[in-house]
Amino acid sequence: MTVTTPVTPPATTAGPVDPPARLLMGPGPVDAHPSVLRAMSASLIGQFDPVMTGYMTETAALYREVLGTTNSATVLVDGTSRAGIEAVLVSLLRPGDRVLVAVIGRFGHLLREIATRAGAEVHVVEAPWGQVLTPAAVEEAVRRVRPVVVATVQGDTSTTMCQPLDELGEICRRHGALLYVDATASLGGNPFEADAWGVDAVSAGLQKCLSGPPGSAPVSLSDAAVAVVRSRHSVEAGLLEPGDDVSDDPVRSNYLDLGQILDYWGPRRLNHHTEATSMLYAARECARLLLVEGRDAVVARHRAAGDAMLAGVRGLGLDVYGDVAHKMTNVVAAVIPDGVDGDAVRAALLSDYGIEIGTSFGPLHGRVWRLGTMGYNARRDAVLTTLAALEDVLRRAGAPVVPGGGTDAARAAYSGTSDATDTEVQR
Amino acid sequence: MTVTTPVTPPATTAGPVDPPARLLMGPGPVDAHPSVLRAMSASLIGQFDPVMTGYMTETAALYREVLGTTNSATVLVDGTSRAGIEAVLVSLLRPGDRVLVAVIGRFGHLLREIATRAGAEVHVVEAPWGQVLTPAAVEEAVRRVRPVVVATVQGDTSTTMCQPLDELGEICRRHGALLYVDATASLGGNPFEADAWGVDAVSAGLQKCLSGPPGSAPVSLSDAAVAVVRSRHSVEAGLLEPGDDVSDDPVRSNYLDLGQILDYWGPRRLNHHTEATSMLYAARECARLLLVEGRDAVVARHRAAGDAMLAGVRGLGLDVYGDVAHKMTNVVAAVIPDGVDGDAVRAALLSDYGIEIGTSFGPLHGRVWRLGTMGYNARRDAVLTTLAALEDVLRRAGAPVVPGGGTDAARAAYSGTSDATDTEVQR
Repeated sequence: MTVTTPVTPPATTAGPVDPPARLLMGPGPVDAHPSVLRAMSASLIGQFDPVMTGYMTETAALYREVLGTTNSATVLVDGTSRAGIEAVLVSLLRPGDRVLVAVIGRFGHLLREIATRAGAEVHVVEAPWGQVLTPAAVEEAVRRVRPVVVATVQGDTSTTMCQPLDELGEICRRHGALLYVDATASLGGNPFEADAWGVDAVSAGLQKCLSGPPGSAPVSLSDAAVAVVRSRHSVEAGLLEPGDDVSDDPVRSNYLDLGQILDYWGPRRLNHHTEATSMLYAARECARLLLVEGRDAVVARHRAAGDAMLAGVRGLGLDVYGDVAHKMTNVVAAVIPDGVDGDAVRAALLSDYGIEIGTSFGPLHGRVWRLGTMGYNARRDAVLTTLAALEDVLRRAGAPVVPGGGTDAARAAYSGTSDATDTEVQR
Repeated sequence: MTVTTPVTPPATTAGPVDPPARLLMGPGPVDAHPSVLRAMSASLIGQFDPVMTGYMTETAALYREVLGTTNSATVLVDGTSRAGIEAVLVSLLRPGDRVLVAVIGRFGHLLREIATRAGAEVHVVEAPWGQVLTPAAVEEAVRRVRPVVVATVQGDTSTTMCQPLDELGEICRRHGALLYVDATASLGGNPFEADAWGVDAVSAGLQKCLSGPPGSAPVSLSDAAVAVVRSRHSVEAGLLEPGDDVSDDPVRSNYLDLGQILDYWGPRRLNHHTEATSMLYAARECARLLLVEGRDAVVARHRAAGDAMLAGVRGLGLDVYGDVAHKMTNVVAAVIPDGVDGDAVRAALLSDYGIEIGTSFGPLHGRVWRLGTMGYNARRDAVLTTLAALEDVLRRAGAPVVPGGGTDAARAAYSGTSDATDTEVQR
């Protein structure tokens, strides 16, 4: 070996993982529930161990309840929420298929981008930035485009908007389209009813209102969506058995082929990927905690925290961006006051308080901060701590702030809500 | 709500994750090192927190050392090892490109399948089952096919074969092809030298010799491979900046587009997916532990454990499948004796001893058991425990076994190796 003076220290000098204390009050990821972190440190078991396949089956059942569905086709995709999005789109859309993407912010454009990569003919109906789409606007576009799939984001943290979905399923059914919803940032903290709303495909992630880490994407498909996936069915050569019906028009991806993932999660347990054991543990615990607390209670807790953060931000004298009547429960976009350096304020919050809040994308970059109250951090103490710290940092940045205005308003907002949502924390 | 009698108990009756004690001696996943499990229970931090981006940079440096490369393009793909395979193939292969897959078992056929989905024109050169390919056979096929990429698996657990790679890089260079190696099952337990062998792309997973859970795929690309990826460069619409060079021939996947993943891991830190925090912690700890123990020491520990398991299996009176001279260090294929029900033996090992060994795929299904000695479980006590349990279960299954023959032979094999590899365990 040639002896040289290393420019950087050898990588082996790296110490163990030891992250600093943080309170994550941005648009996610947020702090995982301690019980989810503990679940991930459980020992591994084999891929086809009956306990492992039992956990998979339980996890599917738990996410059915979380999503409000009886879809048997409910699985995890082993990747971040974006992997779930791509799995749905690449599995449902054949090259050349028309898809209508209903856009209410940056993540709608991500659906557009992913559908384009899947080879689809992509059309967009877009709400003015900071607003949601009316059912009439969506129906007009569906009538014009005649898509096979309508894709939308429920809660788009880039604008804080929460797209009402209760009429979209019916519109899609009338026009023969499937409805796909990316519920990554909204699920758990905002009502979601897959079956009642006629949602044919939904994908999510753990790192927002579900109190988990990024890296696992729950996905559920209606029977109509499963029929499309099945019509493109593949079985790997080494696993083929007599009678297997295999399409000559397979999904373009192997890893994200929902048909193969369903064969792995279903009774055949056909080998596909090796299920990411620790992330499965995390996903299972996220859903279990949510259901133990209760779906409605979790939404109410998010609403209480979000209302308090909204009141607090206004109480500090800041403006709020967007159509607040259609805001997600779990994120507030606070307008950065004139003359204040938004990134410097974020840096001071992180260095002095260990609190993270979010910056923004695209047209809002540098104009708003995004303050999340999500999952484990949709708590009264987290809201008050963030507002007290923000007041201090804003004052030092020279911004006019109302002393105690944020925390007083948040406390008052919490007093107007029931004790149950005020004090109840996930067990 | 309609009151009905539930057919199955409500999912909310599920208790916390509480897997049974297992000793995972199959072809992987195997038990994670306890320090890796602890790393995953560390608190989350924000995606662009300087500590997080620092961990990403350190993780890339650690995997450079593990892989024997100076490739700056060294990242994690957030998915299981199969996601890493697809990321490499879909990013390097344009539709219609010719690829030569050198197959030594089931996982070579997986590369073929994934390359086919990517739209490539796929050619195969296949070794007889249970053998490896000679450099001459590969070169003959390269000369005939003239591929842009030669893809192979280093260690294919389906046959236990370990394909020699040291001459393949030179062959590829002579014929203008890139060399891609899937090192999922071999990395850490068998020598791997990306730069010295001229490997242009390599992907792996954590769940074999790296002592981690499935769900994160280290990937590294040479400058020549990066040039191909860059020629297909995409930047999402919302993130485009003046001067960004964008191809009109983008990679077919967004999630697995290595160009975008490099932009996220590189100095621009362009938002792509949200890095799977806990899996990053795991991947970092896997590499750190390996380098603290030492690359050569880890390979030696695997060789010692694998040799002892091989000797032990033979000492019990079982035959071993395949060309043992080219066997991976970390897995043995034991031929199931005539008249013995292989699955019943596996079930008895699991129920009586909590020990998992592997079944097989394709032509070997029902013919061999696969016994792994990988990662944290490449240990003398794990080998002896497995052999003692196997002797008991085989005897009860009516197979002729040599009493103490397995454990005696394994102990003897260990005595022939240095004390260091016998007793040293990862710290």
